[in-house]
Amino acid sequence: MRLITEVASAAGIKEEHLELYGKYKSKLAPSLWAELKHQPDGKLVLVTAMNPTPAGEGKTLTTIGLAQAMNAAGVRTVAALREPSLGPCLGMKGGATGGGKAQIVPADEINLHFTGDIHAVTSAHNLLSAMIDNHMFQGNSLGLDPQRIVWKRVMDMNDRSLRNIVTGIGDGNGTVRESGFQITTASEIMAVLCLCSDLADLKQRLSRILVGYDHAGQPVTAQAIGAVEAMTALLKEAVKPNLVQTLEGTPVIVHGGPFANIAHGCSSVIGTRYALKLGDVVVTEAGFGADLGAEKFMDIKCRQAGLAPSAAVLVVTVKSLKYNGGVRKEELHQGNQPALLSGLSNMERHIENLRKFGVPVLVALNHFEGDAPAEVNEVLEACGRLGVPAAVSKVWAEGSAGGQELAKELMKLLDREEPVQYAPLYEDHLDIPSKINRIVTEIYRGAGVAFSPAAKRSLAIIDRLGLHHLQVCMAKTPYSFSDQPRLLGAPEGFTMGVRDITLSLGAGFAVVITGNIVTMPGLPAKPAAEGILVDEDGVISGLE
Amino acid sequence: MRLITEVASAAGIKEEHLELYGKYKSKLAPSLWAELKHQPDGKLVLVTAMNPTPAGEGKTLTTIGLAQAMNAAGVRTVAALREPSLGPCLGMKGGATGGGKAQIVPADEINLHFTGDIHAVTSAHNLLSAMIDNHMFQGNSLGLDPQRIVWKRVMDMNDRSLRNIVTGIGDGNGTVRESGFQITTASEIMAVLCLCSDLADLKQRLSRILVGYDHAGQPVTAQAIGAVEAMTALLKEAVKPNLVQTLEGTPVIVHGGPFANIAHGCSSVIGTRYALKLGDVVVTEAGFGADLGAEKFMDIKCRQAGLAPSAAVLVVTVKSLKYNGGVRKEELHQGNQPALLSGLSNMERHIENLRKFGVPVLVALNHFEGDAPAEVNEVLEACGRLGVPAAVSKVWAEGSAGGQELAKELMKLLDREEPVQYAPLYEDHLDIPSKINRIVTEIYRGAGVAFSPAAKRSLAIIDRLGLHHLQVCMAKTPYSFSDQPRLLGAPEGFTMGVRDITLSLGAGFAVVITGNIVTMPGLPAKPAAEGILVDEDGVISGLE
Repeated sequence: MRLITEVASAAGIKEEHLELYGKYKSKLAPSLWAELKHQPDGKLVLVTAMNPTPAGEGKTLTTIGLAQAMNAAGVRTVAALREPSLGPCLGMKGGATGGGKAQIVPADEINLHFTGDIHAVTSAHNLLSAMIDNHMFQGNSLGLDPQRIVWKRVMDMNDRSLRNIVTGIGDGNGTVRESGFQITTASEIMAVLCLCSDLADLKQRLSRILVGYDHAGQPVTAQAIGAVEAMTALLKEAVKPNLVQTLEGTPVIVHGGPFANIAHGCSSVIGTRYALKLGDVVVTEAGFGADLGAEKFMDIKCRQAGLAPSAAVLVVTVKSLKYNGGVRKEELHQGNQPALLSGLSNMERHIENLRKFGVPVLVALNHFEGDAPAEVNEVLEACGRLGVPAAVSKVWAEGSAGGQELAKELMKLLDREEPVQYAPLYEDHLDIPSKINRIVTEIYRGAGVAFSPAAKRSLAIIDRLGLHHLQVCMAKTPYSFSDQPRLLGAPEGFTMGVRDITLSLGAGFAVVITGNIVTMPGLPAKPAAEGILVDEDGVISGLE
Repeated sequence: MRLITEVASAAGIKEEHLELYGKYKSKLAPSLWAELKHQPDGKLVLVTAMNPTPAGEGKTLTTIGLAQAMNAAGVRTVAALREPSLGPCLGMKGGATGGGKAQIVPADEINLHFTGDIHAVTSAHNLLSAMIDNHMFQGNSLGLDPQRIVWKRVMDMNDRSLRNIVTGIGDGNGTVRESGFQITTASEIMAVLCLCSDLADLKQRLSRILVGYDHAGQPVTAQAIGAVEAMTALLKEAVKPNLVQTLEGTPVIVHGGPFANIAHGCSSVIGTRYALKLGDVVVTEAGFGADLGAEKFMDIKCRQAGLAPSAAVLVVTVKSLKYNGGVRKEELHQGNQPALLSGLSNMERHIENLRKFGVPVLVALNHFEGDAPAEVNEVLEACGRLGVPAAVSKVWAEGSAGGQELAKELMKLLDREEPVQYAPLYEDHLDIPSKINRIVTEIYRGAGVAFSPAAKRSLAIIDRLGLHHLQVCMAKTPYSFSDQPRLLGAPEGFTMGVRDITLSLGAGFAVVITGNIVTMPGLPAKPAAEGILVDEDGVISGLE
């Protein structure tokens, strides 16, 4: 690892603009923005994926490896990534810093507390929660209806026991009511942190957060609770982007990490903007497959931030193609040409979808050791038939050397003469049901939408409060275009069931809940935490 | 503010041993210890207080001001303080970084997230909590009795609604059971962090933590749950002490912050040891009045760490003397000589008590603007009659200049020829009831102890498990020597009621609960959070 001061220096950042966290992590001070803001932006490249297997397809890995490869090819490139959440690191997933020769470092520190941003979100969120219950305890002058508090509490831990709880039990402990915890990355404050443009915008967004309704059915916001300034104080460091490096010394901005179902699943706007000033190319990623991640990246993040992506890289794997062709996950290591061919329908649809946003697409076949050459050729040939550039990526095994071909194809795409005509899928002025319908029919290819009674009641509130200008944030299974995880490939004709619609007024979107969305994961029978070891010098192993 | 690198350099710390958190905070790397450990220790001075008014007597302020004054007088002095907890900062108390011209800086960052130590304690604690419930969910091979889980969850927030909760409600969410949250500073992990000598000892202590009992009544530890290594990983940065400075550039180690009732209320052993290598004199403090703070400092912290204090500074105020003489807090600004004289009994008893530990005492009269000269003289004359050195401290108004006299008296005390004969009050080999009795009769001056049925059941468990070697950690009101907050002055003859005894096996003590001890504070009608403001440059006001 190089010192972060050296990485910064190579990226043109003077040491005075660094706020160091140890020797290998730094926050970027607002003074840097004052220096950078008049410089031209680099080109923004989104790394997204086809519908994944439960093991994931390697978007983070590919993002890191591609940034390394671009730098190796002489293009000043910065990666912009999400911060790993502690809960999943200690639970099912392990770390989230890439792997092999395409990693960001120091991996264990990034995976654990990093620079404390997620802890700050937890604190700000739970301060608001405590002030809501305290408001009711101290006389409830706002007339908050304890049955209609929508603001829960959060913790960055996988803890299913906290999903549904009863609080306030006992004498003098407040109002007894049902509540629950979400994981911190599901907090609206995380979405707000990632969508705001600066501290003033952060404060504005926090003030709009809906915490519940009063007895007359009127909305009550964080502003009314009196929590906004203190929440801003708690977040004032978290809003500054973090700089780290890859194993090859490529600068990476790792900042923010909202859920990809009930939130938009992208790293921060502020971090992306810094990256665009520092790199001629910025490679970033969005959560889940392109049906969720890329759609929200285009329709929410880029729209709100005024960003215009120049290209999208679609990560596919032989495994996920076979999975989408119907192979069970236990049998994915076996060859199965018919399933592979069948699963290509999933890739093809994602390519079509991405093109609907006016953005050129490049397929990255993330190579695994067990992939047969025939399988790899099958995928590349299919891409040829579809007229989409494609390259095999071996960045896990080889780092930048394994990403050369991918980088070359990306440079060709970025150097095209015809201008990129990015546009979001739907216009802001449409009403919420129309926006949902547009996504369901044009991206998911369902026949239509069925709203549950609860969703209809929520739509009535949206009508009454005049909130149709909001964007929609789809909360859906990542495994299928539909709301049914086992409907793989390229399904059509299904009806999308909308179970409920909730309001993230600070983030600026309505969350459309389909299927059974879990916002507080549980631990597995053998949590990743049990495999972690620390030696006497504090060196951690088993967290990757 | 000087750069922390400069403060460190002046204290003899090379930059290579710093792990910076921004420009004004740093962790001290273990490599520094390797360099320091063979150097001789400075002299350790405890700042403690008489029984306080609800506003507190200014121990932190006096500690900071005294360290500044000692440095101004040419004695290389380092202060060692506790980290402020976010909950009280946003709740009742506001910040905890001193005040006036005796402050540690950057105050707002120290008061908010600082270097993330308390967040790390929260994460480690709640990981264990989640793994306990997950263990039961996944088949409960240890046979944990859900009715006898003693390990709760923690949050660094004042949130009364979380004191008593029911968790695990709903299908697939685990075992429905009663539980609750404590504030993080009440976590045994905070006590463990503050008492451990290094990472290996931390791990040992974590492994001993009692989480509950199995259906056969046998204890179950964190080790059995499989959480210890991951908890250690989460704490590996938190265990490193933090360096900041006072307004006058005096180096201060701020590290750890356990509760002063159900824990021992002292800053970390590791931090104190570093300070003793860096300063010829180290000034440190302990929570609450001397009956709790100093007793635990002597009997728990110094004993476990093998530290020998050289002097104790007893902070008194005219207000607290009048308060102990029976004046209500609303009338403390008025003169009242009879009450002042009556309240001196409280000061006198603390002086007697401190001398029982073999440590010489110095009284610091923390001066407030409204104190009448006659009142001040009354206190100094009383100290003269008692043969105890005393000085007026005006460090709030004047910084080191206002602490000159106090520093001079302290130097006289430290330069005495006769050796200090520090000894703890009770021997480890006594049984738990005898240890409690010794404290109650010799420090509190009660007539005896009455154990509740619950306490007797706990004593039976202590018998059965052979745990009488533990130290005792008294959880008692800070306002009185007795267990009754309104029994002020120097009460005698009362019986101390012990409501329960809980086991902190990692910290190495049995917590003796008297009266109604709240381990999760609530917010007041007007939380301190509501008075905080942040401007567009991120400058915070209203947090002091």
